[in-house]
Amino acid sequence: MSKFEEKTNHTEIIYKGKIIQLQVDTVTLPDGQTSKRELIKHPGAVAIIALTDEGKIVFVEQYRKALEKSILEIPAGKLESGEKPEVTALRELEEETGYTTDRLNLITSFYTSPGFADELVHLYYTDQLKPLKEAASLDEDEFVEMQELTLEEAEQLASMHRIHDAKTAYALLYLSLKGNAK
Amino acid sequence: MSKFEEKTNHTEIIYKGKIIQLQVDTVTLPDGQTSKRELIKHPGAVAIIALTDEGKIVFVEQYRKALEKSILEIPAGKLESGEKPEVTALRELEEETGYTTDRLNLITSFYTSPGFADELVHLYYTDQLKPLKEAASLDEDEFVEMQELTLEEAEQLASMHRIHDAKTAYALLYLSLKGNAK
Repeated sequence: MSKFEEKTNHTEIIYKGKIIQLQVDTVTLPDGQTSKRELIKHPGAVAIIALTDEGKIVFVEQYRKALEKSILEIPAGKLESGEKPEVTALRELEEETGYTTDRLNLITSFYTSPGFADELVHLYYTDQLKPLKEAASLDEDEFVEMQELTLEEAEQLASMHRIHDAKTAYALLYLSLKGNAK
Repeated sequence: MSKFEEKTNHTEIIYKGKIIQLQVDTVTLPDGQTSKRELIKHPGAVAIIALTDEGKIVFVEQYRKALEKSILEIPAGKLESGEKPEVTALRELEEETGYTTDRLNLITSFYTSPGFADELVHLYYTDQLKPLKEAASLDEDEFVEMQELTLEEAEQLASMHRIHDAKTAYALLYLSLKGNAK
């Protein structure tokens, strides 16, 4: 049994969407009281730290409706049902950047918002990029633009909040430590 | 206008909870097609990288219903309505760890899941901790246990997925770079 475990008495499914599901669990707390937990179920996602031959970092600019603005992020995407994360990672890299690779190393994985969501992001690294002969096509409701930036340019954009999400912030620290980005 | 902006045609509020709100926006895409976006509204949160006088890192162990397991995270919590993030940060530090401080430096802020949620985490740092004379009390549905670990111990727990969330993963990289944790 996990420390401070909360026993589920009842699960109410509020919404089943294309991507997320919302449920409210009624739970018994460690002290015997009951409470409710608002929970988002998410299929999980991948993100890719990709360095070009020149040591530049590959970003995609994308409008995020949740934020009502465009930000620059490392390439990323959701797992399709039953898809292995490394397959998703290669697919998203090809679709969003026009690069492919035969080497993707899993760096780590982390939950993005453990307080309310089970989204787990698998983070990959590659510095072995090859341009695709034919561009892969994006999802029909997806519009992104690829940009290649030095670490210094990226850190400047982060200070201006044009780069502003957790996985990309992690990526910049990772590359600072690793020391091989331009 | 933001690049690739998506115009909102209609917002349907699906659920208004204690913490999160779910809405589905019908949008016009840059190519004129329409699509739907499933969006979570969240009040925002804070997290605190706190080092003891001995250079150990302060963690809290907590059961996360969304993950159905306990993990170790840096101290964190949600903004109350109208609350300034630095006020939340001090309150959560006192409630969850029994320490207080008169120095909290904002390091950065990041969106945790820009694909579907507007949760913004403000990340603070302190190495000026003082034990509280009287313990602050937690929320009535909150059960946490404080632990102080070296960076090496924390990295070991991360490799075992006992530490497994984005803000804490970021904190460990930050402390590796900064070099003043034990």
